[in-house]
Amino acid sequence: MASDRYTLYYSPGAASLCVHWLLIEADLPFDAVLVDFSTGVQRTETYRQLNPTGRVPTLIVDGEARGECTALLMLLAERHPDRGLMPAVGAPLRALWLQTMIYLANTLLPAMRDWFYADQDGPAEGAAAVRGLAQRRIEGAWDLLDVRLRGSANAPGLPLTPENNPKYLVGDTLSTVDFLAVMLMRWSRDMPRPATHWPHLASYVDHLTALPSFHDVCRREGLSNWPAVRGSVRRVWQSTE
Amino acid sequence: MASDRYTLYYSPGAASLCVHWLLIEADLPFDAVLVDFSTGVQRTETYRQLNPTGRVPTLIVDGEARGECTALLMLLAERHPDRGLMPAVGAPLRALWLQTMIYLANTLLPAMRDWFYADQDGPAEGAAAVRGLAQRRIEGAWDLLDVRLRGSANAPGLPLTPENNPKYLVGDTLSTVDFLAVMLMRWSRDMPRPATHWPHLASYVDHLTALPSFHDVCRREGLSNWPAVRGSVRRVWQSTE
Repeated sequence: MASDRYTLYYSPGAASLCVHWLLIEADLPFDAVLVDFSTGVQRTETYRQLNPTGRVPTLIVDGEARGECTALLMLLAERHPDRGLMPAVGAPLRALWLQTMIYLANTLLPAMRDWFYADQDGPAEGAAAVRGLAQRRIEGAWDLLDVRLRGSANAPGLPLTPENNPKYLVGDTLSTVDFLAVMLMRWSRDMPRPATHWPHLASYVDHLTALPSFHDVCRREGLSNWPAVRGSVRRVWQSTE
Repeated sequence: MASDRYTLYYSPGAASLCVHWLLIEADLPFDAVLVDFSTGVQRTETYRQLNPTGRVPTLIVDGEARGECTALLMLLAERHPDRGLMPAVGAPLRALWLQTMIYLANTLLPAMRDWFYADQDGPAEGAAAVRGLAQRRIEGAWDLLDVRLRGSANAPGLPLTPENNPKYLVGDTLSTVDFLAVMLMRWSRDMPRPATHWPHLASYVDHLTALPSFHDVCRREGLSNWPAVRGSVRRVWQSTE
């Protein structure tokens, strides 16, 4: 029974955020169901029937429960090609888009899991080592993404300013990559070196979090403003050049 | 300059194996370039120009260097839809395929990275903790995949035997998921509990490694036979039921 209406199971600020944001930005019809982690409902048999990993997001698509935020962003983009949230199959940017989605999914997402859940996923005595390696990998990913946002769209000789910076990670338009990347960058906000310490990432975050759909998803999930003071991000950018 | 001929940079048995195997199975034209890790060539500036992470695989596609084995499998499948290595966009199995690709990419691949490279990626004193958590996650993934291979294709009441088992992870045909999953299972062969200790995974491995293309890629990469004694896999399966 196909239906164009989705149901999203989410927890505020968790990995469901990028899917929730995309649903709003793309103006897709959906119902949102809060999974209140404080009650442990995510570990119940009922929820595990929907999502055996006990995590969010779960998205009901054509009556079937689906998981994995990266996969859901890709699935929604291809089910609604008119929204233009990914390069079409065969388009010049398609390979870069696929590669970047997978890079975020298998480098940053698991390292963030380690950073936040090392002591839940493994023994407490090993958590510091796991988190230390996670921090190193996360910062390495910010290095790599910062270089990408510095280089690709600047004409040679053009001064590097936030205005000349590429606004998106793939091409000149918003894609699923940006929903995933900004969510991951937000997760780093209380780390020793948040993503916004990298100048071109700060500019990128500044631009994307100004989207009305981002404000909307934060309001619906009850999330505090991030980055806290918009202007300060840009000042960080300038002061590090 | 589009070209239908690919160039694969590979290291024997590494993450390039699944791409190499798919190129052979799908009978796609390609040249293979050995990246000899023992010489450190993967850390040279020349190789990093192709792949900034210094890893394999790198695949030259239409003159551009691309990385991330999961992304490359998906890219090859969609560039050659006639090979039938993924459910088409909109097909009933599409969401399951996407979700499974991403699950393997962001659960098993990074945990395997931890298992093999904890002491290279992070400080030596933390390596045991990182590897311990990796082992737990890898075995959790085998649990989950074993359940999937037990359940989905068996008619109710049908005895669980290797013959009745689903032969593939998504649907009734070979897909990119299987190339990735079998490579990951092979990597576990010297772990305390290899994937082939799970009865339905053993049967799955037994079936897929019997493909002529698997023998061919092992021969070309100089890999020893795995699973070592084909019959023994089946015996493990029966003895645990």
